[in-house]
Amino acid sequence: MIEPKTIAAALEKLRTEKPLVHNITNVVVTNFTANGLLAIGASPVMAYAKEEVADMAKIAGALVLNIGTLNEENVEAMLIAGKSANKHNVPVIFDPVGAGATPYRTETARKIVKELSVAVVRGNAAEIANVVGENWAIRGVDSGDSEGDLIALAVKAAKQLNTIAVITGEQDIVSDGSKTYICNNGDSLLTKVTGAGCLLTSVIGAFCAVEKDHVLASAAALAVYGIAAELAAKGIEYESPGSFQIELLNNLYHISAEDIQKMSLLEEVNHVNL
Amino acid sequence: MIEPKTIAAALEKLRTEKPLVHNITNVVVTNFTANGLLAIGASPVMAYAKEEVADMAKIAGALVLNIGTLNEENVEAMLIAGKSANKHNVPVIFDPVGAGATPYRTETARKIVKELSVAVVRGNAAEIANVVGENWAIRGVDSGDSEGDLIALAVKAAKQLNTIAVITGEQDIVSDGSKTYICNNGDSLLTKVTGAGCLLTSVIGAFCAVEKDHVLASAAALAVYGIAAELAAKGIEYESPGSFQIELLNNLYHISAEDIQKMSLLEEVNHVNL
Amino acid sequence: MIEPKTIAAALEKLRTEKPLVHNITNVVVTNFTANGLLAIGASPVMAYAKEEVADMAKIAGALVLNIGTLNEENVEAMLIAGKSANKHNVPVIFDPVGAGATPYRTETARKIVKELSVAVVRGNAAEIANVVGENWAIRGVDSGDSEGDLIALAVKAAKQLNTIAVITGEQDIVSDGSKTYICNNGDSLLTKVTGAGCLLTSVIGAFCAVEKDHVLASAAALAVYGIAAELAAKGIEYESPGSFQIELLNNLYHISAEDIQKMSLLEEVNHVNL
Repeated sequence: MIEPKTIAAALEKLRTEKPLVHNITNVVVTNFTANGLLAIGASPVMAYAKEEVADMAKIAGALVLNIGTLNEENVEAMLIAGKSANKHNVPVIFDPVGAGATPYRTETARKIVKELSVAVVRGNAAEIANVVGENWAIRGVDSGDSEGDLIALAVKAAKQLNTIAVITGEQDIVSDGSKTYICNNGDSLLTKVTGAGCLLTSVIGAFCAVEKDHVLASAAALAVYGIAAELAAKGIEYESPGSFQIELLNNLYHISAEDIQKMSLLEEVNHVNL
Repeated sequence: MIEPKTIAAALEKLRTEKPLVHNITNVVVTNFTANGLLAIGASPVMAYAKEEVADMAKIAGALVLNIGTLNEENVEAMLIAGKSANKHNVPVIFDPVGAGATPYRTETARKIVKELSVAVVRGNAAEIANVVGENWAIRGVDSGDSEGDLIALAVKAAKQLNTIAVITGEQDIVSDGSKTYICNNGDSLLTKVTGAGCLLTSVIGAFCAVEKDHVLASAAALAVYGIAAELAAKGIEYESPGSFQIELLNNLYHISAEDIQKMSLLEEVNHVNL
Repeated sequence: MIEPKTIAAALEKLRTEKPLVHNITNVVVTNFTANGLLAIGASPVMAYAKEEVADMAKIAGALVLNIGTLNEENVEAMLIAGKSANKHNVPVIFDPVGAGATPYRTETARKIVKELSVAVVRGNAAEIANVVGENWAIRGVDSGDSEGDLIALAVKAAKQLNTIAVITGEQDIVSDGSKTYICNNGDSLLTKVTGAGCLLTSVIGAFCAVEKDHVLASAAALAVYGIAAELAAKGIEYESPGSFQIELLNNLYHISAEDIQKMSLLEEVNHVNL
């Protein structure tokens, strides 16, 4: 069981230590990711050149790799940065955006998890399934699948990839293969903001930079991010994705221990019943 | 004549089908474009690598090409994607940002319309003029030109390029060379938001993905986008470009059949009088 | 002494002339930079391809170079553009983002100031120090340093690089080595918005495009930007970085001669006392 106060303590640590989070991410979400990381209390840095990514990754608290607009050059930089991070015990967080959508993405995602030691991989069910080699339809996957299927997928991915798997959708699941948590925080407006998932991956990176138990760090990130989204949805008059995006940044900045205490919907999954 | 209810039906179809719109666009507007497409109800994807653009374009409902921050690699990817789209009957929408500003842009724009079958080209008058080979000054062109000149330019561009030409400015014009519409919806604050034109091009793509009559699709996109801009301008206290940008996203999400019925200023141009 | 009415006159000139500002900047801040330049009244253009940057720089009112997400290709483009700007008397404004963070950034920053004639260089104290070859810690530098140290650094950088040095932080300093100004406008929320410094650099570019006295132009930009930030902070209910970002754009658009008259905290530094 992860208590709300443990989550709040992790957030407090993040805000105090302001970890440097090195992102090699896609061109769609760079600005939103940087602003979201600043709002939660981290220090974002984006660096992509093969000439410097090893140097940057080594001084970072976490390295976040995101293949949303991958190309040959970026993938090369990701592998260089990832190896430097691995060497210097900097956790690598991986977001396999669109794995399954094209062969190039699927192959690249598999290459990254094979060549690097990845601490956490975060994606929707289709993306995670495609990384582990399951043939899962890439579109509309979240709606049709049962909670049990998703938990089984997370456990399988964690074991097969020797990582922590985070699957997000209506419910969010985090598993290292033996311990599994489910988080029911969040708001459907997150699906109307581009990069909401990408930012979450970077927020997981920020928590992993300050909390060595990366299952706890990932679960805390899911709860904090989901609660901030709920607060953001409450803060706007009616369902408005533009305003929601701004309010999400505001609430990542404002979210308090009290909010977490009152609103956390993070629960441990009993593996005996699986 | 395109009735408001026809426009509303096209929008409804877009929101129901949620077409995948593949964008190869400039680095300035990627985030805003993706959020605008999500708001109107489409599914945006950005993919740029030559290794995957043919695969992505082929499964998309429309392909949008935008040369706002073109380089050798992007242009190569655009041509690969465009040929794949042409082969699989996916409509290609082209935004020749800055054609006329530098020789490289002008030549690239002409290369794209020559090598690809483009369903719709959208730009301001100077950009469209430069694509068709007219020597039109690139800056401040909108204010000085008469409605008649702009209609003549649209008709000429449509015929010469064998496409649908959309010229936007104070008034928006769409023509396939034989049928021409003029749309008076919109708000001057659109000129204070970077990428407002680029997003419109992608919205045209979203409509073309669900409506095979691409003149109707383009005209509907102009009206819907212009009305959303008017609603956005009403939604803010005084002329504020930052807030307007957010309200535009909100109103692309909220715009209703009733709004279209009440506010559409789309009219057919009588070619006999030209 | 620079009077508030002189600052207001420079802003009025900017809004009237709408100078074209050519940016070769990082992928994190492109959208925010373009919107900020539009809001203040300039015409932003982003162009990165080596095939066109010389053509674009030559017709611009200012060229802004920013190494925030530098790579080999961008740096090559920056040098081509910079040489064209130098040849055509277009002022070059340089933002050495992250100089000192990695050897590649430091070396590139030094290469740029060596190979180009730079009118203004703008960075935080650590960045400026690293460009001039001082070994200054890159993180958390602003808080620990005295006003006197920062002024001395600005004067040294200006003399050594034969440029105007702008150091920003809690206080902003501009110096050409003989004349030095300090500006106390601004708000701490600027540190919570990614690209707030990058946009300031581009705003300095916009002022330099219309005002040949580049010390005056830089000082005016600092005051206008800082006052807009203060107005933005007043415009939001409580400290909220998402809303602040939007309000900053709104207030760059709205800031008036009266605001400048009432709020300017720009002062000349007496060099005799240094």
